[in-house]
Amino acid sequence: MRPVTRALTPKGLATRARIVEGAARLLRERNVVETTLDDVLAATGTSKGQLFHYFPDGKDQLLLAVAEHEADRVLDDQRPHLDDLSTWESWEAWRDTVLRRYREMGDTCPLGTLFLQVGRGTPGARAIARGLMSRWQARLAAGMVALQDNGLLDPAFDVDRAAPALLAAVQGGVSILLSTGSDEHLGAALDFHLAQLRAAAVTRASGRRTGA
Amino acid sequence: MRPVTRALTPKGLATRARIVEGAARLLRERNVVETTLDDVLAATGTSKGQLFHYFPDGKDQLLLAVAEHEADRVLDDQRPHLDDLSTWESWEAWRDTVLRRYREMGDTCPLGTLFLQVGRGTPGARAIARGLMSRWQARLAAGMVALQDNGLLDPAFDVDRAAPALLAAVQGGVSILLSTGSDEHLGAALDFHLAQLRAAAVTRASGRRTGA
Repeated sequence: MRPVTRALTPKGLATRARIVEGAARLLRERNVVETTLDDVLAATGTSKGQLFHYFPDGKDQLLLAVAEHEADRVLDDQRPHLDDLSTWESWEAWRDTVLRRYREMGDTCPLGTLFLQVGRGTPGARAIARGLMSRWQARLAAGMVALQDNGLLDPAFDVDRAAPALLAAVQGGVSILLSTGSDEHLGAALDFHLAQLRAAAVTRASGRRTGA
Repeated sequence: MRPVTRALTPKGLATRARIVEGAARLLRERNVVETTLDDVLAATGTSKGQLFHYFPDGKDQLLLAVAEHEADRVLDDQRPHLDDLSTWESWEAWRDTVLRRYREMGDTCPLGTLFLQVGRGTPGARAIARGLMSRWQARLAAGMVALQDNGLLDPAFDVDRAAPALLAAVQGGVSILLSTGSDEHLGAALDFHLAQLRAAAVTRASGRRTGA
């Protein structure tokens, strides 16, 4: 697929974003398979010419753009906490936010549905999934390092091992929630990993004990 | 759906199992959506009358029976280790088996595909998913308790918290493997949890140190 976004003017980028956001809203409300490009045109007030200008390869290209938008949203929904995991309080707030987000979504997973539709194994879907996992993991690792920099976490704590394990735990909790309808495992996985972090907590120079 | 299996003779159960196994083989090879009951009849050498005798509610009932078969297989593929996690060696062997199984399956997930087809939120699919998760978690918990009974793991180790967290970690690793194509997180998650177990290892009465 051609990387059309590169050549777009600010106005063009805004129009493209409007189409993607409108399509994302529409696809969250109804079945991806049954949604046609005409539905997207109607919902976003876009002409066929405009749509094909931004998505010359058609529906799959639009679906990938929506998937990219949904991937950004996965991280946005965890903000501001995800970007500032430098205190135990922000880790707890992040935990609560993640649990609430997925509890509210229940058994729907907009990104997973889009991936299945365009083909999970296609290069475009793979690139979005890899990008999301890598950005997400980097934020978690940055948070653990921030705790260390703040003198709250043992400098010997193995961030490179703990960050991917925490990310896998969250994904697994969500996956079990999607198939069983219960958020028990997501909660247990988050609590287990926060307890592991807390077990490596250190006392601040001030002498106040922040860890458990 | 009627629980027809209850009234079946041993011969009837065998015929039903033959249909389910044949359908499972067929559905692992091709797209569930495109597979018709006629394809299943042809592949299993079954008459339409026979098929509707065992699955009076039709395709969805057959798909749920296949999902149940695939759920059993998830656990069977981890045997014999899953049933005897009483030594550190068996935990390591289990880890290797899990990693190999999902690495070989790559981005295919027969059970997930069946759930999506019959509807992940339907009572039948939910019951199978819950049953699988609960049996799987029970085996992992039993393994941790067996380590404790053998004097290899600290009796204070919190099995009730660690078992669901380990299960979530495996599910998450598999989920990331399915979307990114990389088994890195599955390996990291397994290693993280085995390291947590090992960290609570205790020395045997003999004085030989088995833990890390």
